[in-house]
Amino acid sequence: MGNAHEKALVVLSGGQDSTTCLHWALDRFGRDAVSTLTFDYGQRHRIELECAQRVAADAGVPNDRVPIDTFEALGGNALTEASIGIEAAAEGELPNTFVPGRNLIFLTFAAAYAWPRDIRHIVTGVAQTDYSGYPDCREETLLALEKALRLGMESDVELHTPLMHLSKKQTVEMAVELGALGAMALTHTCYEGLRPPCGRCPACELRARGFDEAGVEDPLLAVS
Amino acid sequence: MGNAHEKALVVLSGGQDSTTCLHWALDRFGRDAVSTLTFDYGQRHRIELECAQRVAADAGVPNDRVPIDTFEALGGNALTEASIGIEAAAEGELPNTFVPGRNLIFLTFAAAYAWPRDIRHIVTGVAQTDYSGYPDCREETLLALEKALRLGMESDVELHTPLMHLSKKQTVEMAVELGALGAMALTHTCYEGLRPPCGRCPACELRARGFDEAGVEDPLLAVS
Repeated sequence: MGNAHEKALVVLSGGQDSTTCLHWALDRFGRDAVSTLTFDYGQRHRIELECAQRVAADAGVPNDRVPIDTFEALGGNALTEASIGIEAAAEGELPNTFVPGRNLIFLTFAAAYAWPRDIRHIVTGVAQTDYSGYPDCREETLLALEKALRLGMESDVELHTPLMHLSKKQTVEMAVELGALGAMALTHTCYEGLRPPCGRCPACELRARGFDEAGVEDPLLAVS
Repeated sequence: MGNAHEKALVVLSGGQDSTTCLHWALDRFGRDAVSTLTFDYGQRHRIELECAQRVAADAGVPNDRVPIDTFEALGGNALTEASIGIEAAAEGELPNTFVPGRNLIFLTFAAAYAWPRDIRHIVTGVAQTDYSGYPDCREETLLALEKALRLGMESDVELHTPLMHLSKKQTVEMAVELGALGAMALTHTCYEGLRPPCGRCPACELRARGFDEAGVEDPLLAVS
């Protein structure tokens, strides 16, 4: 557990989950202690980077952007290669948006960024209840990674995953409780990179279901 | 433990240790099963990349090169910033060549590279006896990382560290036993990027001591 005087870094993609985590961190650590880090890893949609910037500005915290060119060089997945269509996963299979080790890399670079800046807490919006079933989002994986980071950097870095066990409905409810519903209008979710969102891709459908189940109107849908 | 029919990837820097590991892997897994991966992460000396290429060619195995631009963007260490002088570490301190999490990143990207290629074994030349005292080279760190990689990629990837507990003298002896002494003439060690090596930087001194103690002449010194 951290205390209010320690610094926290939120890995901010500009999506619904990481934006909710940013507001969780503001509440937990205080605005002055919080900064955000966004990875420019060759996303199909550059709009995500702008959303992260706007979400951070709206919250009144800094947003730093760091490039990762390696995923594109490794190739072969639908999140960075425009030529590959995004498909829902078959039962028991990993989806073709799976980039092996992506969250491990994000969190390791976040810890490397935090290290010289004396930032102890790293907050990420991964959730093992996520429909996608990415194995690098599971609690067990993150605990093993936290151990590797602590040993490998001789630090007491803590990984915080406030959404780990929440359903999408509960994540929406958390955003409402944190007063972060308005910020949801600034976020980006659609796999097609559309704004207003396409409403048909797996990411849009998942988001809509969460808002529906929470009985809350998604402010993003009022944007046009 | 792997068997001879499984594929292995050697993380090859072009230095003495990773070259010895490549020859260990050839012996253990067989030439046809082995490939090598070199990271272009903004090293001060491009000669390292050429050495890796030559070492792999000499061994008759493929060498793939993958960029990592992120360390340079994070900044602040002597291995990638030419403006920072390399200094030996004070007792109990980390040297200014320490890049937080560097080996964690290398091995995670290596595992991400290995994943779609059905490569189970990853071989790295890290050693906890290394004078530098990098915490991300220690066995405990690597075991935690291996666990995170297995969980995060749902794989049975194995990290092999044949030099983990060897002194530099023993590493030289291993190279001799593996018939890899000749390959040492192709490697690069000098922090100053010189060939023939400067003989004065901490890396050159460490290498020279290992060869001295093993009573073997360093073939690199005969190159000029």
